Amino acid sequence: MTQIAPSPVHPVQQRYADPALAVPGAWNPVLQVLHEHKSVRRYLPDPVSPETIELLVSAAQSAASSSNLQVWSVIEVRDAERRARLAAVAGGQQHIEQAPVLLVWTADFARLRQLAEDRDAPLAGSDYLESSYVGFIDAALAAQNAVVAAESLGLGTVYIGALRNDPERVAAELQLPDGVFAVFGLVVGHPDPTEGTRVKPRLPRAAVLHRESYDLAVQRAAVADYEQRIGELYRDQGLPFSWIERVLARLASAASLNGRDRLREHLTARGFGLR
Amino acid sequence: MTQIAPSPVHPVQQRYADPALAVPGAWNPVLQVLHEHKSVRRYLPDPVSPETIELLVSAAQSAASSSNLQVWSVIEVRDAERRARLAAVAGGQQHIEQAPVLLVWTADFARLRQLAEDRDAPLAGSDYLESSYVGFIDAALAAQNAVVAAESLGLGTVYIGALRNDPERVAAELQLPDGVFAVFGLVVGHPDPTEGTRVKPRLPRAAVLHRESYDLAVQRAAVADYEQRIGELYRDQGLPFSWIERVLARLASAASLNGRDRLREHLTARGFGLR
Repeated sequence: MTQIAPSPVHPVQQRYADPALAVPGAWNPVLQVLHEHKSVRRYLPDPVSPETIELLVSAAQSAASSSNLQVWSVIEVRDAERRARLAAVAGGQQHIEQAPVLLVWTADFARLRQLAEDRDAPLAGSDYLESSYVGFIDAALAAQNAVVAAESLGLGTVYIGALRNDPERVAAELQLPDGVFAVFGLVVGHPDPTEGTRVKPRLPRAAVLHRESYDLAVQRAAVADYEQRIGELYRDQGLPFSWIERVLARLASAASLNGRDRLREHLTARGFGLR
Repeated sequence: MTQIAPSPVHPVQQRYADPALAVPGAWNPVLQVLHEHKSVRRYLPDPVSPETIELLVSAAQSAASSSNLQVWSVIEVRDAERRARLAAVAGGQQHIEQAPVLLVWTADFARLRQLAEDRDAPLAGSDYLESSYVGFIDAALAAQNAVVAAESLGLGTVYIGALRNDPERVAAELQLPDGVFAVFGLVVGHPDPTEGTRVKPRLPRAAVLHRESYDLAVQRAAVADYEQRIGELYRDQGLPFSWIERVLARLASAASLNGRDRLREHLTARGFGLR
């Protein structure tokens, strides 16, 4: 792979907001794209061709699939009015209307159920909670490959988990049959260069990478370190945020889940057994 | 990005086992790595350094995280006896013992729960089914970035979903605290070049990519086409397999889930509310 000249602050240092961090010995254009990821929330109106979306989908299908079941599908939404209605489901996220394409990634058991019905074959295993996770994981692995592919082409993306705020409206909008559930959306478009978002620093590696067994004691110091580093970034942007306050508020109660506390009944309504 | 000379069969054609497929206009080293993915099940004994694993983890942490909650962690397992015991959980998958590293990706609410307890703050939102999916999705997006990073460095990987066959043994082995659940393993090592695995073809794009709304009718023809294409590949390898028969068998019954039909009680035992 071609060597890319390192920037004054290496992408790994940037990812942890830690200029003192050791720079890795190995580097290549793939690692560069992965580490430079930013969620993009302002887009130019420039189009993204159907061929480009097809390329993102072949990248997505190249990800591993549990037992090669391939229990996912993706809906390419371009219609402006449909995107506006889905933006409303997602609490009015403007970027869904601004960018030309919204990809909706689904856990899809409809394909296999039709196959089983045609052959009068049993498919009781699809009624278990496990199978819903397989569908969600398969969809996530696929979508992440699409994100990396998009960014390698200079496009921007942002995941829209808020489609789970009202899964029934999403299902009606996309005519999802029984057994298909919209896991999340993914906006795809050309980033507005004036957006100015910086790479979001993450928890120190010590918090998430454990050796041989899980270490809970390390978490307090790692989180305190992170609270300070990300706090400095927020202050630079004039934002009075605390990571700790924000994550605790997000998960404080059923109400803070914005409707997703009802996910069990939504999945059941979509034909997921969850046994 | 550097242009790579296309092979006689383009990676996109190879992914669908369809030499007649139109070749994409855009191409780059990232797309190359994504499309060439293979799950590797035979490894050389060559080591993988701790620094390389750290690089995979910074790539993983660069993936999007729902509301920046970062509700995942990863355990790096190198100890040979521990890997042997985890291979036994996974139904005796030899490659877990053969490769030097097993990464176990977890949905992790222990970090945030400790944070909440320290502050006497509520965290009732973590007890909902929704939150378990957020943890699983976050872990999957992160792990997939690690896979792409590993492959860019010439390493091979394979996901080990079978750790979910017996989550209690995995939790005991890795000393996972309450609120941490092992979603899947990921073997990382140097591929044995004599393995000879080919890229696994996937369902035609028409089966998984829908425009504006889901199309169930298209699935029958797409699956029939796939059954034939992958059947030819199986026959070349002397394997009397049918994709349709295999997926229907995998999901036929509770028993065919190899213990994962009990996932609900395992998650509950690990402190996941699933409300």
